[in-house]
Amino acid sequence: MTEQAPAPDDQADGDEFLPRRALLDQIDAAIADGDAERLNLLLEPMHGADIADIIERLTPAERRTFLGLYSGEIDGEILSEIDEAIRDEVIEQLPPEVVAEAVREMDSDDVVDLVEDMDEPERAEILAALDATDRAAVQQALAYPEYSAGRLMQSEVVTAPEHWTVGEAVAFLQSEDWLPEQFYHIVLVDPRRHPLGYVTLGRLLASAHSTPLRDITEDSFRTISAFAEEADVAYVFNQYHLISAPVVDRDDRLVGIITIDDAMAVLDEEHEEDILRLAGVGDESSLTDSVVQTARQRVPWLATNILTAVAAASVIGLFESSIAKLVALAVLMPIVASMGGNAGTQTLTVAVRGLATKGLTKDNSMRVIRREAAVGLLNGAIFGLAIGCVTFFWFGSFGLGAVIGLAMVINLTIAALAGILVPLTLEKLGADPALASPTFVTTVTDVVGFFAFLGLATVMLL
Amino acid sequence: MTEQAPAPDDQADGDEFLPRRALLDQIDAAIADGDAERLNLLLEPMHGADIADIIERLTPAERRTFLGLYSGEIDGEILSEIDEAIRDEVIEQLPPEVVAEAVREMDSDDVVDLVEDMDEPERAEILAALDATDRAAVQQALAYPEYSAGRLMQSEVVTAPEHWTVGEAVAFLQSEDWLPEQFYHIVLVDPRRHPLGYVTLGRLLASAHSTPLRDITEDSFRTISAFAEEADVAYVFNQYHLISAPVVDRDDRLVGIITIDDAMAVLDEEHEEDILRLAGVGDESSLTDSVVQTARQRVPWLATNILTAVAAASVIGLFESSIAKLVALAVLMPIVASMGGNAGTQTLTVAVRGLATKGLTKDNSMRVIRREAAVGLLNGAIFGLAIGCVTFFWFGSFGLGAVIGLAMVINLTIAALAGILVPLTLEKLGADPALASPTFVTTVTDVVGFFAFLGLATVMLL
Repeated sequence: MTEQAPAPDDQADGDEFLPRRALLDQIDAAIADGDAERLNLLLEPMHGADIADIIERLTPAERRTFLGLYSGEIDGEILSEIDEAIRDEVIEQLPPEVVAEAVREMDSDDVVDLVEDMDEPERAEILAALDATDRAAVQQALAYPEYSAGRLMQSEVVTAPEHWTVGEAVAFLQSEDWLPEQFYHIVLVDPRRHPLGYVTLGRLLASAHSTPLRDITEDSFRTISAFAEEADVAYVFNQYHLISAPVVDRDDRLVGIITIDDAMAVLDEEHEEDILRLAGVGDESSLTDSVVQTARQRVPWLATNILTAVAAASVIGLFESSIAKLVALAVLMPIVASMGGNAGTQTLTVAVRGLATKGLTKDNSMRVIRREAAVGLLNGAIFGLAIGCVTFFWFGSFGLGAVIGLAMVINLTIAALAGILVPLTLEKLGADPALASPTFVTTVTDVVGFFAFLGLATVMLL
Repeated sequence: MTEQAPAPDDQADGDEFLPRRALLDQIDAAIADGDAERLNLLLEPMHGADIADIIERLTPAERRTFLGLYSGEIDGEILSEIDEAIRDEVIEQLPPEVVAEAVREMDSDDVVDLVEDMDEPERAEILAALDATDRAAVQQALAYPEYSAGRLMQSEVVTAPEHWTVGEAVAFLQSEDWLPEQFYHIVLVDPRRHPLGYVTLGRLLASAHSTPLRDITEDSFRTISAFAEEADVAYVFNQYHLISAPVVDRDDRLVGIITIDDAMAVLDEEHEEDILRLAGVGDESSLTDSVVQTARQRVPWLATNILTAVAAASVIGLFESSIAKLVALAVLMPIVASMGGNAGTQTLTVAVRGLATKGLTKDNSMRVIRREAAVGLLNGAIFGLAIGCVTFFWFGSFGLGAVIGLAMVINLTIAALAGILVPLTLEKLGADPALASPTFVTTVTDVVGFFAFLGLATVMLL
């Protein structure tokens, strides 16, 4: 085995985790040929998440053909992995009995995820496929606000009375014919279902049967309110290395459990949202959207930007006569604006990230504001001096060099303040600080940059 | 309990997951008073991750005082949670025996994380504190490349021979006096330590003692090469909802295991890196850095930007005589550049995100490039028409409106192409596509925007 080892692993570029190109080509061919049998054979060994990815990458026409050939095999796993953007489209094209069967296989949290954005008639149809207990669990979860822990939890929890011993718990698990597919802890509850602690299965297995469960509970135990925001749930899992955490209602009664894989998915989505919002891209965008859908998603931001760009241009318009006298001003003014935009975006991104990771809070915001202002002033001085010298040698004017240098100091300081104050203000107002896209900060730095540079030049040089 | 429920949970703003303000104030007071006893009492119930956060937020001077008062209590958990940026500083200030004791408590993956960036003498000193087995495990992990699965894994794995039954595995776990603190699976291995499958502890507990382990293995089982990049490890965990995955060497022999909490931390770091790099902020930046450190981190990007801004300005310089004839050109030109910059950043962000999530691959890159170009053309037409009309009404010139409209179409199309081609090229060259910061795209859109607008105006209007 050692001698004939193929391509060394250290050259891996990550593609080994993706389905092979050749396999994808064969799948495409099977779809084109309408060969259901071959398609089944090719997809049979694949993970539901990978099949979902394949479905997402097809064009709408290919997808219809695909679903026609493969609809019988769409199970709960595949359905719950398909991107929300196209899931409704997929469900509409599937026979109702396939959807019903798929939904019955799903954990309650996946069903909630599936139906929460649906309209009432479609939702009712899906829920009708569930048995009464599962339906009640889904409806209970739907009663919690969107993006709350209550929507994220699954209701299937393995619990034990607080007074049980390891032996009693082991006997219970042996006798119970229903258990969740994945569980890592047994939650100890009192008679009113208040969770009191939890025991890992590893500890349970390693302990003597006579040991009381309460003697082997974990320090990491903490409960999560069903009303907590899912972003905060992700934070808590990441901060405390939790694997699962019981969810409680207002009366501290156990209503469900969240496991780390769901928290990880939320963390990933939150990041996606932040990064896309910072770029002014609708956070529902996906690589499978059509040209028109994509163009439409990007219009609102570009429309905002054209308004702010016109506003910045009208600031320049105030100084038309100055520019007519000294055209060098027109040549140099974008430098001041551009540097401000970049410095502001740097501060803004650090601030948004700090708020998301709870590194930036009320307690240290004044310190961070002061630091950013000082950084803006310092870098303003450095780059003001640099561009002043460049300008002096370029245009041979000491006065013009002094004006652009001074404008740079002003704009970089304002940029830093805008970069930190805009997201902090949005956070305080309860809005997402990532909505403070660089566009807003760039508007400030464009307006201030043009005004400071052209204004100083008009006063000092003309 | 119900009647007297305090502030409703649905107004939670996430701060309930942070240490209380009052508590932080008391801690600050205890540090200021040099009251070690009170400090101990206040910190005693806190999680190591929260204590680490408190240490990170102190100024360097406060931190020295804090460590003087609290050094005896710094354990492995706190030490492994402290941000890399200040960990060396903290370790230097701790008595060697405290560090040694803390390191002995840590899992091997945390020790690797601690020492991997240290210089040889410091690293040797830390490793000397470990017993021989642990030291060997750390040194084995350090032999793998940085940011590889080998560095991320812990060597402590619970394994069982493939032919065992549930009863044998349970008896083994009962008798074993050493077990990892957290484990979720038993890995089945053949006599040469090739992993063949795994069994969840939940399934083990629920199954009859006579059941062969190989009959209850999980479908989700997949091994990870020790040479795989940690970003790909995070992807695999998130894609397949893994909880743990065995790590194998080049000969497919088991060398360790990675658990989802570590994969989640990597996912978080990768996102941080992407978002900070996209903004041109050094990815080692932290909110606790000093003014000078912060300013210095941001200088390289601003320096790059000033060069590109001067380049864009010199394009304007080519058209000085046109601007002198028609000052309106100076007023309008930033609009074309700014819209291009925004449209390019939108595309760039979607591309970087697509590459990170493996939604954008070789297989669909041509399709995405075509789509982005079409979106650029479409939005260029929409906003070209809009700004053409605005210009017509503003300056009363049909020619000027036509020129700016045409320039907008050109610049938004080029912006889209730059936004997708720059990150794809970087990825192909093996560089991080997130380094294709908007600054590069903005340079393209500034140069093209100014050149197209001023050039067309010179040819068509003057």
